[in-house]
Parts: sequence; C-alpha cells; structure tokens
Amino acid sequence: MLPQTDMFPTDQVKPQPTIKFLQQPTRPDWIEQALQNLDTILLDHSHCERKAAGVAVNMMFRYPSYTQLVRTLTAIAREELEHFELVNQWLDRRDIPMAPLPAPPYGSKLNAQIRRDEPERLLDMLLVSGLIEARSHERLGLLAQHLPNPELAKFYRSLMASEARHYGAYWVLATIYFESDVVTARLQELATVESELLATLHPHPRIHS
Amino acid sequence: MLPQTDMFPTDQVKPQPTIKFLQQPTRPDWIEQALQNLDTILLDHSHCERKAAGVAVNMMFRYPSYTQLVRTLTAIAREELEHFELVNQWLDRRDIPMAPLPAPPYGSKLNAQIRRDEPERLLDMLLVSGLIEARSHERLGLLAQHLPNPELAKFYRSLMASEARHYGAYWVLATIYFESDVVTARLQELATVESELLATLHPHPRIHS
Repeated sequence: MLPQTDMFPTDQVKPQPTIKFLQQPTRPDWIEQALQNLDTILLDHSHCERKAAGVAVNMMFRYPSYTQLVRTLTAIAREELEHFELVNQWLDRRDIPMAPLPAPPYGSKLNAQIRRDEPERLLDMLLVSGLIEARSHERLGLLAQHLPNPELAKFYRSLMASEARHYGAYWVLATIYFESDVVTARLQELATVESELLATLHPHPRIHS
Repeated sequence: MLPQTDMFPTDQVKPQPTIKFLQQPTRPDWIEQALQNLDTILLDHSHCERKAAGVAVNMMFRYPSYTQLVRTLTAIAREELEHFELVNQWLDRRDIPMAPLPAPPYGSKLNAQIRRDEPERLLDMLLVSGLIEARSHERLGLLAQHLPNPELAKFYRSLMASEARHYGAYWVLATIYFESDVVTARLQELATVESELLATLHPHPRIHS
C-alpha cells in the first residue's frame, strides 16, 4: 500500500483537508441524508464501483503504450470490479434490485473540467479520478463510522484501504508523466472545483451528493 | 466451470467443429504464421485480453439492470484483466514494448453483424463475444500445443479453462434472455460469418489473423 501521508505537500493546500487532495471535508448533513436513504446509497455505490472500473479500463484503452499507467490501472480496475461484486452482494441481501439511478451532477461537472488536448487531457483525467477516489474514500469512511449495522460498517471499513491506495496511485501516475509543480498546481485548481461542487447538498441521496 | 460438451446441440452444426460454436477449425497455416511471429502474437494477445475486458465492462454499462448478465460479465472482466496482466508479464520478460498494433479485420467485421435495435442487439453482442472467445480458446490451444518454449506452452494451457468458461457463459446468458431456438438460429448465422472471415489467412500475424 502506498503511504498516504507523503502523497501531497500539505503546506500548499488550504484549508486543512480531512483527506489528502480534498480542499473541504464533507458537509455534516451528507451523512444524515445517507443514513436515511441507505438502500439508495448502496445502489449508487454499486454504480460508482462499476463506473470507477469503467474509467480505469477506458484509460487503459486510450493510452495502451503507457506501461506504468496500464499496469496500475489494470490493478485498480480489478479491485473496483471486486468491490462492485461485493456491493452487489449487499444489494442482494437487502432485496435491492439493480436499477438505474440518475447520477448527481458531481461526476459530469468534474469531467467537464478535463481539457480536451493532450497532454493536459491525461493529467486532468488522472487528477479527476484521484479526486473522486479521495472523496469516495472519505465518504465510505463516514459510512463505516456512522452506520448502525455493524456488519455493513465493517464492510465499508474493509473497502477503505484500497480506496486510499487508488487515489494515491492516480497521484503517483500523474507525477510519473508530468512535472511535480504542474501536477500540484492543477490539482489545487481541480480540488477547488471539487469542493465547490459539494458545497451544497444535492437533494437526491448519492455517494457524491 | 460450465460443461463444454452440453453447450450446443452439435447435430445442428455442420461440418464437425473442433470447438463448440465454431463452424470451421483454424487453417493449418495460422499456427505456422503465429510461431514465426511470436512476439507480435504475444503483443496482440495482450491487446485481445484488454479488449475482451473492455467489451464485458461496456456491456455491464449498457445493461445495468440485467442482474445475471452483470454478475457473469463482472467475473469475466476480472478474469480477462488478470490474463492481461499475465500476458504483459510475458511481454516484459521478452522485452516487447507495449506498442499499439493495427487490429485485423476480424473484430470489426464481426461487430458489423450486430443489429442496432434491441433486443436483437443484446443477442448479437452476446453471441459475437461468445464466438470470439471460442475462437480464442481454439487458437490459444493451438499455441499451447505447438509452442517450442515449454514454459510459454504451459502458460497457454493455463489460460484455456477460463477461455472455455467464457464462451460457455456468453451462450448461457443468451439462453437466459432469449428463446433457445432463436439463439441457435442466430448463432449459426454468426458462426458462418465468423468462419468465413478466417477462411483466408490475414497477412499480418494476429490471434485472429
């Protein structure tokens, strides 16, 4: 597992983040909304894991010659698919059908920040994925901490180590292909947008509402 | 593992297939071409595994509410990604860089057979994927049988069980969502096209040349 603490020069990030990469911690009312709509959150979590696997696989297709990227994203995609299976087992147990669920604006608005030309596109894709993983790590951690069902709480704790590894891995990939100061500056810009997108609670309960 | 032998009513398939689903066995000159261009074949095999994972993940996105499909394809995607990692280790060992490689016409011409409207689209996607897996199974088997490097031959043998499981799984999914006689009739049509596409050896050595 990659060390979380040395991922990012924290003295360049303001204000104090709860999780490396994130500019602002999650609003306290998100966890209330999540706990009151747990079945929807579980279903959305399933979609998130599938989407995370899809993002990793799509990047492997876009950059097939980037050996280190392909290697790292293969491992990430495999883990996301494993998590997807595990969340789906929870859907099964709770008789939650695998229905589509409208996505919150978070993902599409973050993706809109990705610049269209290379090499900026690659940098932005890596950093946006890293930010989404960092936020997921934070929110799955809040679920692990607050869920009244001890078995489900334990499940969420079990996912946290690999979510942390994933956002670290996206950061490391960015620093392999780009200069460190370029990565740091762009991460700050994107992290600001990311936190602003979550400054207002989205009315529909989602992992990224 | 699904039983291979009961997959298909063989009395409806002519002529004798070597592998269930396939109308014609591979031309003998393919294995000669492959053995003479082994590094290219290994690189193409890597691309094939990534593409197979991509196809499974894309179908999971297209049909997110089809529980059995999603479950089966998640397992397949995980295995394809594992194979992708294993083939890439062989590329590493042989100092073959992960370069792009123009695809042979096989895949795009098979995909052109997929009808655009549902539910035919789903049926065709499942059967085309099943056919590609069946052909891959046959050809990896030929490599396992003919490769002079015993370790590489052993590696190819180790992949064969799951390749067989995959084409069986696509067939089973087709019969879950469609009437058996509809599946059988369409499979025959597609299998005829598949064999015709390989009736002439493609000049560039590929898994599906």
